[in-house]
Amino acid sequence: MKPINKLNVQDEFIGFYLLKELNLRQTNSTPPKDYFDIVLSDSSGQISAKYWDVTIQDKETFLPMQLVKIQGVVQNYRNQSQVKINKIRRAREDDGVSLTDFVRCAPIRPVDLLHTIKLAIHEITDQDIRNIVQFCVGKVEEKLMHYPAAKTYHHAYFAGLAYHIVRMLEIGDFICKQRPFLNPDLLKAGIILHDIAKPEEMIAQMGIVTDYSNQGKLVGHIVMASNWIVEAAITHNIPIDFEIILGLQHLVLSHHNLGEWGSPVQPQTAEAVALHYIDLMDAKLQMVEDALDTTADTEPWTSMIRGLENKSIYRLKV
Amino acid sequence: MKPINKLNVQDEFIGFYLLKELNLRQTNSTPPKDYFDIVLSDSSGQISAKYWDVTIQDKETFLPMQLVKIQGVVQNYRNQSQVKINKIRRAREDDGVSLTDFVRCAPIRPVDLLHTIKLAIHEITDQDIRNIVQFCVGKVEEKLMHYPAAKTYHHAYFAGLAYHIVRMLEIGDFICKQRPFLNPDLLKAGIILHDIAKPEEMIAQMGIVTDYSNQGKLVGHIVMASNWIVEAAITHNIPIDFEIILGLQHLVLSHHNLGEWGSPVQPQTAEAVALHYIDLMDAKLQMVEDALDTTADTEPWTSMIRGLENKSIYRLKV
Amino acid sequence: MKPINKLNVQDEFIGFYLLKELNLRQTNSTPPKDYFDIVLSDSSGQISAKYWDVTIQDKETFLPMQLVKIQGVVQNYRNQSQVKINKIRRAREDDGVSLTDFVRCAPIRPVDLLHTIKLAIHEITDQDIRNIVQFCVGKVEEKLMHYPAAKTYHHAYFAGLAYHIVRMLEIGDFICKQRPFLNPDLLKAGIILHDIAKPEEMIAQMGIVTDYSNQGKLVGHIVMASNWIVEAAITHNIPIDFEIILGLQHLVLSHHNLGEWGSPVQPQTAEAVALHYIDLMDAKLQMVEDALDTTADTEPWTSMIRGLENKSIYRLKV
Amino acid sequence: MKPINKLNVQDEFIGFYLLKELNLRQTNSTPPKDYFDIVLSDSSGQISAKYWDVTIQDKETFLPMQLVKIQGVVQNYRNQSQVKINKIRRAREDDGVSLTDFVRCAPIRPVDLLHTIKLAIHEITDQDIRNIVQFCVGKVEEKLMHYPAAKTYHHAYFAGLAYHIVRMLEIGDFICKQRPFLNPDLLKAGIILHDIAKPEEMIAQMGIVTDYSNQGKLVGHIVMASNWIVEAAITHNIPIDFEIILGLQHLVLSHHNLGEWGSPVQPQTAEAVALHYIDLMDAKLQMVEDALDTTADTEPWTSMIRGLENKSIYRLKV
Amino acid sequence: MKPINKLNVQDEFIGFYLLKELNLRQTNSTPPKDYFDIVLSDSSGQISAKYWDVTIQDKETFLPMQLVKIQGVVQNYRNQSQVKINKIRRAREDDGVSLTDFVRCAPIRPVDLLHTIKLAIHEITDQDIRNIVQFCVGKVEEKLMHYPAAKTYHHAYFAGLAYHIVRMLEIGDFICKQRPFLNPDLLKAGIILHDIAKPEEMIAQMGIVTDYSNQGKLVGHIVMASNWIVEAAITHNIPIDFEIILGLQHLVLSHHNLGEWGSPVQPQTAEAVALHYIDLMDAKLQMVEDALDTTADTEPWTSMIRGLENKSIYRLKV
Amino acid sequence: MKPINKLNVQDEFIGFYLLKELNLRQTNSTPPKDYFDIVLSDSSGQISAKYWDVTIQDKETFLPMQLVKIQGVVQNYRNQSQVKINKIRRAREDDGVSLTDFVRCAPIRPVDLLHTIKLAIHEITDQDIRNIVQFCVGKVEEKLMHYPAAKTYHHAYFAGLAYHIVRMLEIGDFICKQRPFLNPDLLKAGIILHDIAKPEEMIAQMGIVTDYSNQGKLVGHIVMASNWIVEAAITHNIPIDFEIILGLQHLVLSHHNLGEWGSPVQPQTAEAVALHYIDLMDAKLQMVEDALDTTADTEPWTSMIRGLENKSIYRLKV
Repeated sequence: MKPINKLNVQDEFIGFYLLKELNLRQTNSTPPKDYFDIVLSDSSGQISAKYWDVTIQDKETFLPMQLVKIQGVVQNYRNQSQVKINKIRRAREDDGVSLTDFVRCAPIRPVDLLHTIKLAIHEITDQDIRNIVQFCVGKVEEKLMHYPAAKTYHHAYFAGLAYHIVRMLEIGDFICKQRPFLNPDLLKAGIILHDIAKPEEMIAQMGIVTDYSNQGKLVGHIVMASNWIVEAAITHNIPIDFEIILGLQHLVLSHHNLGEWGSPVQPQTAEAVALHYIDLMDAKLQMVEDALDTTADTEPWTSMIRGLENKSIYRLKV
Repeated sequence: MKPINKLNVQDEFIGFYLLKELNLRQTNSTPPKDYFDIVLSDSSGQISAKYWDVTIQDKETFLPMQLVKIQGVVQNYRNQSQVKINKIRRAREDDGVSLTDFVRCAPIRPVDLLHTIKLAIHEITDQDIRNIVQFCVGKVEEKLMHYPAAKTYHHAYFAGLAYHIVRMLEIGDFICKQRPFLNPDLLKAGIILHDIAKPEEMIAQMGIVTDYSNQGKLVGHIVMASNWIVEAAITHNIPIDFEIILGLQHLVLSHHNLGEWGSPVQPQTAEAVALHYIDLMDAKLQMVEDALDTTADTEPWTSMIRGLENKSIYRLKV
Repeated sequence: MKPINKLNVQDEFIGFYLLKELNLRQTNSTPPKDYFDIVLSDSSGQISAKYWDVTIQDKETFLPMQLVKIQGVVQNYRNQSQVKINKIRRAREDDGVSLTDFVRCAPIRPVDLLHTIKLAIHEITDQDIRNIVQFCVGKVEEKLMHYPAAKTYHHAYFAGLAYHIVRMLEIGDFICKQRPFLNPDLLKAGIILHDIAKPEEMIAQMGIVTDYSNQGKLVGHIVMASNWIVEAAITHNIPIDFEIILGLQHLVLSHHNLGEWGSPVQPQTAEAVALHYIDLMDAKLQMVEDALDTTADTEPWTSMIRGLENKSIYRLKV
Repeated sequence: MKPINKLNVQDEFIGFYLLKELNLRQTNSTPPKDYFDIVLSDSSGQISAKYWDVTIQDKETFLPMQLVKIQGVVQNYRNQSQVKINKIRRAREDDGVSLTDFVRCAPIRPVDLLHTIKLAIHEITDQDIRNIVQFCVGKVEEKLMHYPAAKTYHHAYFAGLAYHIVRMLEIGDFICKQRPFLNPDLLKAGIILHDIAKPEEMIAQMGIVTDYSNQGKLVGHIVMASNWIVEAAITHNIPIDFEIILGLQHLVLSHHNLGEWGSPVQPQTAEAVALHYIDLMDAKLQMVEDALDTTADTEPWTSMIRGLENKSIYRLKV
Repeated sequence: MKPINKLNVQDEFIGFYLLKELNLRQTNSTPPKDYFDIVLSDSSGQISAKYWDVTIQDKETFLPMQLVKIQGVVQNYRNQSQVKINKIRRAREDDGVSLTDFVRCAPIRPVDLLHTIKLAIHEITDQDIRNIVQFCVGKVEEKLMHYPAAKTYHHAYFAGLAYHIVRMLEIGDFICKQRPFLNPDLLKAGIILHDIAKPEEMIAQMGIVTDYSNQGKLVGHIVMASNWIVEAAITHNIPIDFEIILGLQHLVLSHHNLGEWGSPVQPQTAEAVALHYIDLMDAKLQMVEDALDTTADTEPWTSMIRGLENKSIYRLKV
Repeated sequence: MKPINKLNVQDEFIGFYLLKELNLRQTNSTPPKDYFDIVLSDSSGQISAKYWDVTIQDKETFLPMQLVKIQGVVQNYRNQSQVKINKIRRAREDDGVSLTDFVRCAPIRPVDLLHTIKLAIHEITDQDIRNIVQFCVGKVEEKLMHYPAAKTYHHAYFAGLAYHIVRMLEIGDFICKQRPFLNPDLLKAGIILHDIAKPEEMIAQMGIVTDYSNQGKLVGHIVMASNWIVEAAITHNIPIDFEIILGLQHLVLSHHNLGEWGSPVQPQTAEAVALHYIDLMDAKLQMVEDALDTTADTEPWTSMIRGLENKSIYRLKV
């Protein structure tokens, strides 16, 4: 069974894929006919597809985020590959395929990512900081097993958020060793908390964000995390204007660095400066790595990347 | 006794003034001599002054924010008026002068301003909203009697913040009548809460801001007010993700409109849009009014106003 | 007869609508066939529509801005509702329908709006100011009965411009009472004149702007109004460099506040500052009100609004 | 007699100079003593100066913009040359010096500049255009003999405005020959009219701008020139919405190219585009030429130039 | 044979055209059918076209950049003219048509443009400058005969780059005469070298840019030209930090004026300032001229021009 | 002997310091007297100082960048500490003090920094890359022993540039291990070359930049390094358009990321993206560390830091 990023124009193929998007449309003909406008995906990428001559039964059978078995052919439509589906049926239990095999995932198992994050919390020596971090993580622990870090910007896949946190913890450990004036407790806490409210800001399924929550739009994940720190402080009987609360709120609030990027205050502690640049470095390098991974080896240039000044990345032949 | 904005070059005068700023300096002479570099103020304005030949006793006698009696002469120094102080002594009880007479004040008595604010709270029909507003105002009730609304930007005087709120409430009442689709409870709450944490963000005495608090710098008044709403919600057993809490936090968080002006989210409810433009209108027109009030009637142009695109205001002779 | 904003997918319906836009197109078939690409509108909103199998006679019968009777069905096309027209004929006199019932209108009758504006002119106490305002209004009096205030930005409907002026006059009255240092004559004049040349800047029919005039593009409504003030001054024998002319020109020229928003000078009189913020407040709140009015009650969010930082407005459930 | 740009530290000298600025100040000494803070200038440049021990009589004798005879010495004050004046007296008639020899002037005689401009007007073939240009020039003809083109930005000297116009006419002639699709009448008119209201926008004496007029601040030279075109049209019975009036107003209004540079509309005719770039080229190259002229030949770098991205110009040794 | 810019809707025609773009597409029909999506061009303009019912043989016969004979009809598709091709065949030798007649060209023959450039090099009096310019031009001499100056921005046609250089040389000659302080050798060298690496930055055929080279994307034409100057210096035994090399590199590096426009340094020699404004003037006026030339005489407005603030140009009827 | 950052107002002291700046000035007295305006520095910081009553001999004795022995007292001048020097003499050989002890230095010995850089070059496996890096380092090897990385922005001290490179190499090693898709040869080369031309761009003595070179201003260190890569390529017979040269030039040219920050191209290879963010992280964290190091332990806030959005850093008490 061919993965999607290996399908070429003219290929005829049979295989299992995920119905990432599915829309019922009508043709221009008289009378117009129903057809499905589809996005198929697997863990290697995605491709658009059409299924013509939709029956009444089809409309009830097929829904987004289902696994289906398809027989189709790849065509060129407006300079892009597109699948014309000849046959389609829903996957059955005895097909032995599982939804999680068909979405893009972080390269480390979610359970291991969460374990690493918990270990990092355990290493925080200050009890108040540890309690507050634990309280906030507790709010989204289950969602950390599968939520992406963003809709499209970076780490936009299954467990992408936890993966982002774990990689940042690695950089944080290195930087704390290189520059001992940094406080490891604060930096760890900042790394774990900075995006911790994203699972409540976004609505996602299988690592794919479909929308933002009302709270996400009206308050935003930065202040939501800040709210949780207040809630944690009250729960643990720490006055909300104590230095430690200021410090943790400041880390979360300032991590986007500038007002126009969403931070109401700018980094003004050593760890807040470090957090911002660790976040930036991990996000940008992951964009590069993901772009190269999802571009065919034969292509010298990736497609344009919004987060990298709209530039493509070149595979230097050195 | 001449008010400061009536002092002209060459005037010799005796009177009581406030030592708004006082710094000990040394002349360039050999050996250098001590002198005081001073800013005198009263309710009509301020002027710089020098007191030469400072004695050891003087250094212990005079402190900033004291009232003093002065005999002096106004000179021209680098195109600006400057007082040369010939005699100076601290005001005594039997002089019958009071500190509050010497600072710039809102044109309505603080106690009346606070009364109006409390009346407005009382008029909020929704009990949860009323409780939360009451909780937050309770945190700074005493400071509302004298805090300014800003360091220099607008309403920068004694009880300026309460005055700003009261005038905005007036505009809010009008707009709610003109446009009945606006919710008066929410708009009242937004007007009262939008700057409610400023007294904890800034450090002020007699309506004069001397610095920002650590919390003010690291968290900022917008998120501080948002924190208080969370605290109020927990105190009143309202879940922090309830619609009403989102709505109140959104009003506070979005009232600066843009990220580069400090708001982590942009206005997305009708009342949040209204709040922003009411705030803007009151602040800008007050800048104009204050600039005209503190400019001599004979001057056709005020000095430049930072908040008005660095423009001066012209007294049109119509 | 169902208003457009109540039409749902699958609805079959008969009714009268306005042909807001009408374009002849060809299908991709061999040989291609003619069809009409249409935008239908009524006072509640608009919807796109297709009429297939256009005859030679149809091409001569139907023109934009006509009223037609339609039998059709609502379909889903690319996630948007679209009408498939089965039958269409022009409205006849005996159908008893009138064009003005099918366009979006200001909520107050044009004749009443104009009356209010004239009353406000009448209240201007300074005769020169009153004459100049009268002269300029006289140039577009007939067009004020139906012109919108803008193509799409705000008040983009029948008599929208006059409605905008009237609402601003209400705010102006309030603000002059709240802040007596403002000159009511100047503020009234500024409100009436600030957009007075828009009817000559834009080409509109039934409240719908189809284009900008050459003069609108090359000179712009701000300087056109400024020209008219010069013309009025000459007509009334007032030297064009008299204070009153400077003041009126300044109000018009500066009302967009910044150069990048089209104002060659920035507000530098008290009334010019007031005018800008009154204009801003009325325009922004009207955008909110219109967006909520044209969004189905069941929708929690309006669509995105360009003039409000591209944000949608949320109906808070309080 | 040494010109100012040849004076070096330690030089003792006697000569005639202009009192470009003169301020009475007081020293820090007890009691303070009066002294003059002075800017001396001649046609080669300017230098700051001090005259200590001012007498009561001196205060009445010396005024800005007078010619004086000075005996002084050049000292180093805060890394800048400064003259200490030992003796000073007003120039007498029999000294044979004339004010105009002491200000920086355009390199061509004003009378010749004006002659060239009038010749250019004469060459305009379209009578309406010629009449309008003539009308506007007539308003400031006398001031064109000495006004600068700007306060400091470029051509900031005696007759600098007329010189700027004449040089632009030369470039205009060349460009019209190189690109015959340009209309020479319009381009000539645009060049002559684009800054024609500057003498009424600025208040200047001997080519030195001391302030802006009220009209200059409230309306600005761009719209003032636009007003004059309207006035000229009415005088010559040309309707103010005639194509020719649009064209001339458009040239003037758009010549700063962008709203943030003061133009309410952007260039939209061929001649308006040409006018903007001719203006830009002449202004920028004149800044370079003036900076090099007023920098000692031995200095490889000029001082920083605001209008050239705050860069200095290097004398390349080629 | 009708030129493309004279084709109107409903015209039936036969003629020779260039296949500027050719893409194989499939219709929505069941089964889908192949068709060609085409852009036809000649020296007067371009138009989109469709050829339905493509045969297997057609797919092998037709390729982009071929000349073809066509019988077709002009239709209106989405408000734009579009050709429906009824018959198509490749041009044959005995048709007597030549590729160069079908592309837009500079109005002067390439061989004459190159001759003019060589003459200008010959006139450079400094031998080192002349040698370096000669070395760089030698690298792209053949490509100068046909390369455009840009993909779409300006002079985007056959030999557009050489034409741009020649016109700038004319302006340069004029400016050197008007302002003798400019060094003609340096200015000539700057004009010839400023875009000299564009033929290696872009990939073009017949004056049409299809892509950028890897070197163009990773290094850019500005630094590529700078590299060539280094190479030339080494070849001619001139140390790379000699004044003359600095001067020539500076001209090339600074000619875009600002960092955001691609220049790593800003103009800091007189000739570098002149070069930037000559480049700007020639590019902008050429945009205007080309827009007017390719717009039907009956149209008062050209289409929008990206390089001119997205404005259209108006044909003033004077 | 007290280090400068331990000097408090009123302290009388004797010690050796560096004359970092020395200017001869005159007092306002009549007649004016000569005095020295001085900046004293040692490795702990700097302080301004005055030496009154300068003799003719003093003027010849003292020069900037000399070591001197001073007896003085610390006074408060305009709210800043300032030394009044009572006695001063040049340091003698038998004083046993050495210039290098009095300048701020990188915390690692220059010889060790250079050794680490050479080791890194040695580890580059690709011979061409290694040769080119070696060639460029060879040009400034001696200056790498003492040059700062910038005038004030970051690492502005003795051997700051080499220290910056060494710390970036550490981060680079870590990142290459964390993300094996990065090419260590290219990243090492990029880190070593990115600022390699700074010692020729700036003029510095003892780690203190006094000016920029002509080449630094006209070409800039980014293109200078790019020039050296071309020179190295020619020396080693590598064509200048070879992939490896593109790659190395691209690393250097793009490392400031944006045009407005001085990069003519934006990062478009994985290693170029990594280089930019490594550079950013090291520079920003060093600014924080240096600001905290040079602020008294008792101060909760550092002074404002230009490179960190003009914010101060707070010592969180956790």
